[in-house]
Amino acid sequence: MVDLLGALAYAELTAFLRMAEDAAHLAPTVTDRAQLGELAVTEYGHFRLLRDRLTELGADPERAMAPFCGAFDAWHELTRPGDWLAALVKAYVGLGIALDFYREAAKRLDPSLSPLVEEVLADEPRSEFVVERVRAALAEDPAQSGRLALWARRLVGEALSQAQQVAAARPELARLLSDADQADVSRLFAQLTEEHNKRMAALGL
Amino acid sequence: MVDLLGALAYAELTAFLRMAEDAAHLAPTVTDRAQLGELAVTEYGHFRLLRDRLTELGADPERAMAPFCGAFDAWHELTRPGDWLAALVKAYVGLGIALDFYREAAKRLDPSLSPLVEEVLADEPRSEFVVERVRAALAEDPAQSGRLALWARRLVGEALSQAQQVAAARPELARLLSDADQADVSRLFAQLTEEHNKRMAALGL
Repeated sequence: MVDLLGALAYAELTAFLRMAEDAAHLAPTVTDRAQLGELAVTEYGHFRLLRDRLTELGADPERAMAPFCGAFDAWHELTRPGDWLAALVKAYVGLGIALDFYREAAKRLDPSLSPLVEEVLADEPRSEFVVERVRAALAEDPAQSGRLALWARRLVGEALSQAQQVAAARPELARLLSDADQADVSRLFAQLTEEHNKRMAALGL
Repeated sequence: MVDLLGALAYAELTAFLRMAEDAAHLAPTVTDRAQLGELAVTEYGHFRLLRDRLTELGADPERAMAPFCGAFDAWHELTRPGDWLAALVKAYVGLGIALDFYREAAKRLDPSLSPLVEEVLADEPRSEFVVERVRAALAEDPAQSGRLALWARRLVGEALSQAQQVAAARPELARLLSDADQADVSRLFAQLTEEHNKRMAALGL
């Protein structure tokens, strides 16, 4: 449980900082910058919930996050968006996968975590502006869609590859999320991919 | 008034993004990263207050901020911190100057702005952790103090230089903040410098 909260906490903290960075460097207007900034701040709010929960459980948040820093940092390094649309797609894909993890975790974990998960999931509509922005950009320039579809596939591919490494290094965490057997980790990944594909369809990709 | 709110709004948005960037790149531990991140999120909260107020006044936030982007971006470009201590000092100095501006503005402006200013000022203690961190670092390595004192002086010098340019370009704004005459702008700057020096003493610089 501490492992899971630590992984999610670091994921949220890093998402916050990377989104803020993308907002600063890639947003075409100040309004766009503020909008992605707002999403980043939402992630920080989730980080705070998770960190406080770790502290309540008597765990040291820094130590709980440490085993997962490498995987999340690697994912972000491997998926630096080169432009604003790529940054939006990354924010949307990353958030989507994270929320799927929360949902899976909620099914299997201590019910005391449910309020936290519900609070996080309640923020899901905040990323809806991305859908509108990407669809509008594609309507204007349909030639972008191949590139962005490929980008989205790379984002999820690199995420699953990092997740696989984490699962191998922390088998207890993998078991926690997948009812104990290896086949079920694959099922979890298949499930995540399916949800990802639905989100891509929503983006028009 | 729209000018003043626009300037403060852009200052807060940029402070948020730059602090998040410094947190991501310069913080020595994940806890430090989270702590500067938290301060950044506070700045975003102020941005949101100002932006919403601009909207209430019927102004377009993006247009209200536009005249001030150059000055704030220039300040941040000219004062990129090279390490964690420099980033902390920058956050503290920048926040301090901003809060002094709010205080001056509150004295002279429409009383309808007072609740907003009070809400912003209520967050001042959030930067106190910087004082502790910098003092602890100086206690451990007193040789740092000359370098950081010089850095703090550069931070305030560049800020006043940008402010002077803004005052020249937007004389109505300068008048608003300084009861109409040029001598009073100098008094305002002298006041800001004095407050800055008190903060430096608090840091042990």
